[in-house]
Amino acid sequence: MAKKITSKDEDFSQWYQDIIREGKLADHSPVRGCMVIRPNGYALWENMQDALDQMFKDTGHENAYFPLFIPKSFLSKEAQHVEGFAKECAVVTHSRLQSSDDGVEVDPDSKLEEELIVRPTSETIIWDSYRNWIQSYRDLPILINQWANVVRWEMRTRLFLRTMEFLWQEGHTAHATKEEAVDETKQMLEVYRTFAEEYMAMPVVTGVKTESERFAGAVDTYCIETLLQDNKALQAGTSHFLGQNFAKAFDVKFQSSEGQHEYVWATSWGVSTRLIGGLIMTHSDDQGLVLPPKLAPNQVFIVPIWKSDEQKEQVLDYCHEIMDELKELNVRIKLDHRENMSPGWKFNEHEAAGIPLRLTIGPRDLENNNVELARRDTGNKEIVDREGIAQKVANLLETIQDKLFETAQQRIQDNTHSVDSYDEFKEVIENEGGFVYAHWDGTAETEEKIKDETKATIRCIPLEDGEEGECMVTGKPSEQKVLFARAY
Amino acid sequence: MAKKITSKDEDFSQWYQDIIREGKLADHSPVRGCMVIRPNGYALWENMQDALDQMFKDTGHENAYFPLFIPKSFLSKEAQHVEGFAKECAVVTHSRLQSSDDGVEVDPDSKLEEELIVRPTSETIIWDSYRNWIQSYRDLPILINQWANVVRWEMRTRLFLRTMEFLWQEGHTAHATKEEAVDETKQMLEVYRTFAEEYMAMPVVTGVKTESERFAGAVDTYCIETLLQDNKALQAGTSHFLGQNFAKAFDVKFQSSEGQHEYVWATSWGVSTRLIGGLIMTHSDDQGLVLPPKLAPNQVFIVPIWKSDEQKEQVLDYCHEIMDELKELNVRIKLDHRENMSPGWKFNEHEAAGIPLRLTIGPRDLENNNVELARRDTGNKEIVDREGIAQKVANLLETIQDKLFETAQQRIQDNTHSVDSYDEFKEVIENEGGFVYAHWDGTAETEEKIKDETKATIRCIPLEDGEEGECMVTGKPSEQKVLFARAY
Repeated sequence: MAKKITSKDEDFSQWYQDIIREGKLADHSPVRGCMVIRPNGYALWENMQDALDQMFKDTGHENAYFPLFIPKSFLSKEAQHVEGFAKECAVVTHSRLQSSDDGVEVDPDSKLEEELIVRPTSETIIWDSYRNWIQSYRDLPILINQWANVVRWEMRTRLFLRTMEFLWQEGHTAHATKEEAVDETKQMLEVYRTFAEEYMAMPVVTGVKTESERFAGAVDTYCIETLLQDNKALQAGTSHFLGQNFAKAFDVKFQSSEGQHEYVWATSWGVSTRLIGGLIMTHSDDQGLVLPPKLAPNQVFIVPIWKSDEQKEQVLDYCHEIMDELKELNVRIKLDHRENMSPGWKFNEHEAAGIPLRLTIGPRDLENNNVELARRDTGNKEIVDREGIAQKVANLLETIQDKLFETAQQRIQDNTHSVDSYDEFKEVIENEGGFVYAHWDGTAETEEKIKDETKATIRCIPLEDGEEGECMVTGKPSEQKVLFARAY
Repeated sequence: MAKKITSKDEDFSQWYQDIIREGKLADHSPVRGCMVIRPNGYALWENMQDALDQMFKDTGHENAYFPLFIPKSFLSKEAQHVEGFAKECAVVTHSRLQSSDDGVEVDPDSKLEEELIVRPTSETIIWDSYRNWIQSYRDLPILINQWANVVRWEMRTRLFLRTMEFLWQEGHTAHATKEEAVDETKQMLEVYRTFAEEYMAMPVVTGVKTESERFAGAVDTYCIETLLQDNKALQAGTSHFLGQNFAKAFDVKFQSSEGQHEYVWATSWGVSTRLIGGLIMTHSDDQGLVLPPKLAPNQVFIVPIWKSDEQKEQVLDYCHEIMDELKELNVRIKLDHRENMSPGWKFNEHEAAGIPLRLTIGPRDLENNNVELARRDTGNKEIVDREGIAQKVANLLETIQDKLFETAQQRIQDNTHSVDSYDEFKEVIENEGGFVYAHWDGTAETEEKIKDETKATIRCIPLEDGEEGECMVTGKPSEQKVLFARAY
């Protein structure tokens, strides 16, 4: 019952697909570019949602739900926005099918007066509502989040990382002042950083996108960027300061406390099921998925072993006692007492599913008041005392969470470079990959030239101040080094 | 600051719209038939989701997510199914927009090879996956639920009750035997009954649909039906035994433990945001929304009253102490200390939002160690001791929950009739409405005739056995009386 996981050194892309298949996270669907998120993958997403949702609510946000469909004319109200999304829109044009010789065909009489776009993002439909909700400064701020599916007609897709339909949350806030909107944008970036690092154990760099990488319609796009095990970067979340662009496009003004009529300031911010791709590529190994305990749907699984019915009863009793103790400490635990599968088969299955800890319990453990404990991340096994097992497990889960973060952080540090010449840059990008800090003159032309010549893009202008210098390509002045990488 | 709620006796339909508007539950959207679910409405839906999701998980189900889009050809694989849904499909035909003189137009070059249907329900796309997941009896049962949006192109819509896009959950299970699938169908009906009665405080009748009212593709459709304050019935949830229809359409067979290859047995079951419409029409009154405590996003709100800054501090301290005590008992509570609104304004606003209990706390209450307590459902006010307030409130919330159910049950009982002749039937349906039990000969012809002549439909054949008799229309034998009503 060997698992069929390609080594990541051999073929990283195939390894990624194998992890997803063996971990039963998702399938390709018959609709090109869409995915089926299987129960193991969805349970992981639910845990990510729960943690994020709590963080959104703790920062004063409420959830709401806006329509899936956006009238075609709405998209074109904000010029940048429509330019960014026009080429990847699923367009609804008809509303009925009718019988035909080979099954069904679209009923031409059901053509819509105005075509509808399946939302690629919801700024336009939401700002249309905000116009009705906002009259005075007393109606502000509006702090709303939406959990939803969105569709972007992508040609090259990859499970979780880039799919035509994906699940996400999108926050959309409205404010009376520019300052408040900028603060909100940064606050949500910090929420994403915290979530990525403390829950996903995925270290990130925070920064601002260059103009060419900005969200269509934004004044500034802030982002978290991580580096994966193949040394490619991943944009993991974005928080946009939208200025008054959407307020102007949808004519949303408010009366200030001084009686002036002013346009409303906006932000939007989102993370998606793409995060699951990042999580996989951050921690997993050639045995399968590795999950951080805080997000793992099951944190511990117990495999009981017996040879006789008498032993079975005793072993299961022992297991249930331990489970009860663990549940008291809120450990998510699963007892795998299926009888038609060998322990080895179960070990493999749960290893591929990324469950952080395994307890194996057989008759000898009962005799000696022991439990065998095995870590998914390191593979370490140890025999531990039955006494105090629950606290031991709870502590170990915390240790694993920390260790995963430290390991990832060390890996990213080891693969982060700072260069001073374009030759050095090209050599590092080509031979080592990873994050590369370098000076850039701030122009779109130079950015484009570097991208064309090296396939590396500017991931962000880091938020921390850096030293001044000269662009590695043009020699023109540069305020600080920016972060380059080849990216997904 | 009077609320603008039409009396329900005067115009029930307008009353319903007013409740939704004043309770800030939802708006009509610019896309015909779609709705914007506002934070108050969505928080209610989240509570409904949480309770249902726990019940699904307690009965062994897992969540997953399947694509929004269904290839057109999939729909036609099950003959009844496509017949049921073909006339209400949003059809995606293109994938790009391009600039034009008046903004954007659909790019004709982006026409899809095969049109995609926005899912009206997911049986077809899910059974296509199940074919890949099921080989042997060891892979069964599959017990999956999905929380999702679906689209049905309805011509006549009404917020929550019937919208083009709605949110729902759809369970889809696969079983080795007919018996197991039938048991699952009935189990989920019972979950819905429990949820409706114990959480929504909405009494329901359980039964089976007649053939003409069956889900398209089902062998049997079980349902819960309730009666609203305007004496019209509402189908509030359905659970379908699908037989082997979808397994045959998608060629899903399994190898049994005896080595035979057999088609898989199926069920599906769902409830939607329609339930919110049912909830509103079950309990609300001319002052606005009335919510059962178990589902109310806020169960209690406190309005503090003060005249001086010194009083303010004392009153707010007193409020916070009470809040802390209430939170310890897991009461969901909100302190409304907004300074630019009068107490009366706040009373109105929270009344319209359906919050079950109000505490009013002013300087005199501090002096006397009192709290003023007002119930949303009865309007009763009382002054109660500060001492023991938390337990008192918790108990009162339970009392209110029970009372709402009893009141609704009494109302439904009072409006349930049993008739023996068609004349009597017509008179009751026309003059009183409500639920009407009557004998029916079991034919679609008679059912249709009754519907044409009275606008009443058979809501269900009740699960409890009734006495035999003769059809009120044809005089032919009838096994038991069935439940008629005019319905939404």
